[in-house]
Amino acid sequence: MISLSSYAGVMESLMNSAEEQPPSSLLANKNQKPKCVGGFVLVHAGAGYHSESKAKEYKHVCKRACQRAVDRLKAGALAVEAVAAALVELEDSPFTNAGMGSNLNLSGEIECDASIMDGKSLHYGAVGAISGMKNPVLVANRLLSEAQKGKLSAGRIPPCFLVGRGAHDWAVGHGMPPCLSEKMATKFSLSAYKRNKRKMELAEKMDTGHNQAKKRRQSSENENCSGCLDTVGAVVVDLEGNVAAAVSSGGLAMKHPGRVGQAAHYGCGCWAENACNMNPYSTAVSTSGCGEHLIRTMLARECSAAMQSEDAHQALLDAMQNKFISSPFLASEDRVLGGVIVLRCCRCVEPQPSQNIQGILVEFLWSHTTESMCVGYMSVQDSKAKTHISRLPPGTVPGQCLAIEGGVCRLTSAVE
Amino acid sequence: MISLSSYAGVMESLMNSAEEQPPSSLLANKNQKPKCVGGFVLVHAGAGYHSESKAKEYKHVCKRACQRAVDRLKAGALAVEAVAAALVELEDSPFTNAGMGSNLNLSGEIECDASIMDGKSLHYGAVGAISGMKNPVLVANRLLSEAQKGKLSAGRIPPCFLVGRGAHDWAVGHGMPPCLSEKMATKFSLSAYKRNKRKMELAEKMDTGHNQAKKRRQSSENENCSGCLDTVGAVVVDLEGNVAAAVSSGGLAMKHPGRVGQAAHYGCGCWAENACNMNPYSTAVSTSGCGEHLIRTMLARECSAAMQSEDAHQALLDAMQNKFISSPFLASEDRVLGGVIVLRCCRCVEPQPSQNIQGILVEFLWSHTTESMCVGYMSVQDSKAKTHISRLPPGTVPGQCLAIEGGVCRLTSAVE
Repeated sequence: MISLSSYAGVMESLMNSAEEQPPSSLLANKNQKPKCVGGFVLVHAGAGYHSESKAKEYKHVCKRACQRAVDRLKAGALAVEAVAAALVELEDSPFTNAGMGSNLNLSGEIECDASIMDGKSLHYGAVGAISGMKNPVLVANRLLSEAQKGKLSAGRIPPCFLVGRGAHDWAVGHGMPPCLSEKMATKFSLSAYKRNKRKMELAEKMDTGHNQAKKRRQSSENENCSGCLDTVGAVVVDLEGNVAAAVSSGGLAMKHPGRVGQAAHYGCGCWAENACNMNPYSTAVSTSGCGEHLIRTMLARECSAAMQSEDAHQALLDAMQNKFISSPFLASEDRVLGGVIVLRCCRCVEPQPSQNIQGILVEFLWSHTTESMCVGYMSVQDSKAKTHISRLPPGTVPGQCLAIEGGVCRLTSAVE
Repeated sequence: MISLSSYAGVMESLMNSAEEQPPSSLLANKNQKPKCVGGFVLVHAGAGYHSESKAKEYKHVCKRACQRAVDRLKAGALAVEAVAAALVELEDSPFTNAGMGSNLNLSGEIECDASIMDGKSLHYGAVGAISGMKNPVLVANRLLSEAQKGKLSAGRIPPCFLVGRGAHDWAVGHGMPPCLSEKMATKFSLSAYKRNKRKMELAEKMDTGHNQAKKRRQSSENENCSGCLDTVGAVVVDLEGNVAAAVSSGGLAMKHPGRVGQAAHYGCGCWAENACNMNPYSTAVSTSGCGEHLIRTMLARECSAAMQSEDAHQALLDAMQNKFISSPFLASEDRVLGGVIVLRCCRCVEPQPSQNIQGILVEFLWSHTTESMCVGYMSVQDSKAKTHISRLPPGTVPGQCLAIEGGVCRLTSAVE
């Protein structure tokens, strides 16, 4: 493994306005049954390369996704419902590589992966290589909620992971409308497919001859596949302190049909775990990047586990360096491409306990080894989402260096 | 979670005959280039329920599988090749729920899961819900070896996990012969399908009426699905000390088409990791049982990690109790069904270092919460495999109690 240089961005301190100003409406009538409304969402529109020309679109979709989650939280939804709502918005954007506008595979078809995890029940649902569903995350979410209902007839255990045609048919059987695959392709994804196809044919033509296999392996080492990596995801905490995470992806461009990436892989695409006896923090993680790298390092779960140590920023930095860039599982890879968004929270001690205020301290971070990563975040008390395109510092090498940034937010509300 | 009682079987001490009697053929000519031949294999024909009437068949197939792996090891094969050879034998048996004779799904079709991991390269290959391939493990193994060759044309990353039709087509495209699905069903699997179908229809008929959904969930809590659990697997160490693990399954009987179980899930079905700076022991694990339980607890990887602590027996006992039976991930389950085979090894200090003998100490264990588990094991120095059907002690409750047994074996050979 080559030596690494790393870049640690300054941890912004984004103390939420609510800290100075608890939402007065909640305190107005103390005799009323107190309502828990609140929460925080962090979304990403992929770790990869976000051109300046499309930056605006990526930020817009992140903003809308945050708003969707916050709307659900305001309506009293739990984290898992809010995170699904954010994902739907991200999937529906033709600019992201998820749902609508997903990358096309070798056969020119769209096959999507998605998964969702509920930190409260620790239940998980996932779909892999599913076609003809506008919102794969909703199928994953439905698998999760069906599994929570317990056994099927004749004592059969409900599935948590369905793939391909079977996943599609299960969704339709559960009342979810199918969507023509043609409708999910966009002008952009179709032209990218044609471009990639030409590029592949050219590369393979150049490789014909005696050492075809060998050459094939050596070719294009430095080709930039960054356009293929904009998987989307989100992490949410609700005001009860429950966390949830989700991820959705159209997968690598020109992937083999049936290929399943990290977005459908337990422990690799997303992770959410409420605090418990053993873990002081609730944590939620969603990943993006090269699926095989994220699978083999099980990055979502590794980052979640790392976040139980005291310094969140240092813990994520260490995890990204030791469990990802320098992971023994990727020793043969010269460039390790991926990104994560991470959220952790704990109940915090209030300065004025007499006011019946309950507080949750939310630390949120993102880190990536890709050229850029687009994120958005918003708390229920915010009037609109903040968005940001994080970029590796100039002169650093994608896949060998990383950027890390984040912030802190305190959620407060009245309690019983 | 209900309280548990546990049963810890006595750790057998099966010191291999080789310990007293190093293989003389290897020592005969010290001037000859020393050959590393040796190794050890442990296989299972599933954690579930093995009737006395079929015990002989299960033991036979385990014996043959051990022999196949040992034959490969004797021919100088690495652990990963030997483990694949054992799996082929296990899959080919019509008695096991893998490959030939797999359980049929809801639609009466066979869809298999399999995966393999090489502890040396830490590469991994898996197929999920694949039809029409006699030996799913060979497709998984081919994915592993293709991925080790590096990138595809135009810089595309080779897949490590393929599912469904795409997996089948990839295998055929790589020269693997397809097999008619009808040929993979057996008289036994077809009659089990018909029986299960009637049982389901009956259960669903009884559930019609107002509270259908509710009743459906409550029904059959105590039904014994143990016949569905006989996934197969193996773990191997070669005399270089490399470990490998593999697993293969036809999945739960009457599963929904497209359902993927633990056998295709990274970290859940099998795990293999050579010793390294951080880990003193090489470890290999293969699991069997209820796929969803094994997925959500990521049991293979958890057991592998646990085996780095000093007392192997105690470590596995703790892992099975704390990370499986009492896992917070399965808090809502009243019966947690599964089993593991585990192997760990390290170089050991020889009493007579002057003899140019190199030794590997192999500790091997199995543990299960199902009624029974059928295992076989053999070292290259043995003339034939030992087989055993481990059973929960009388009066204990499957899914809440466990059995644990194992042994020790020392591998020796001449070195340079």
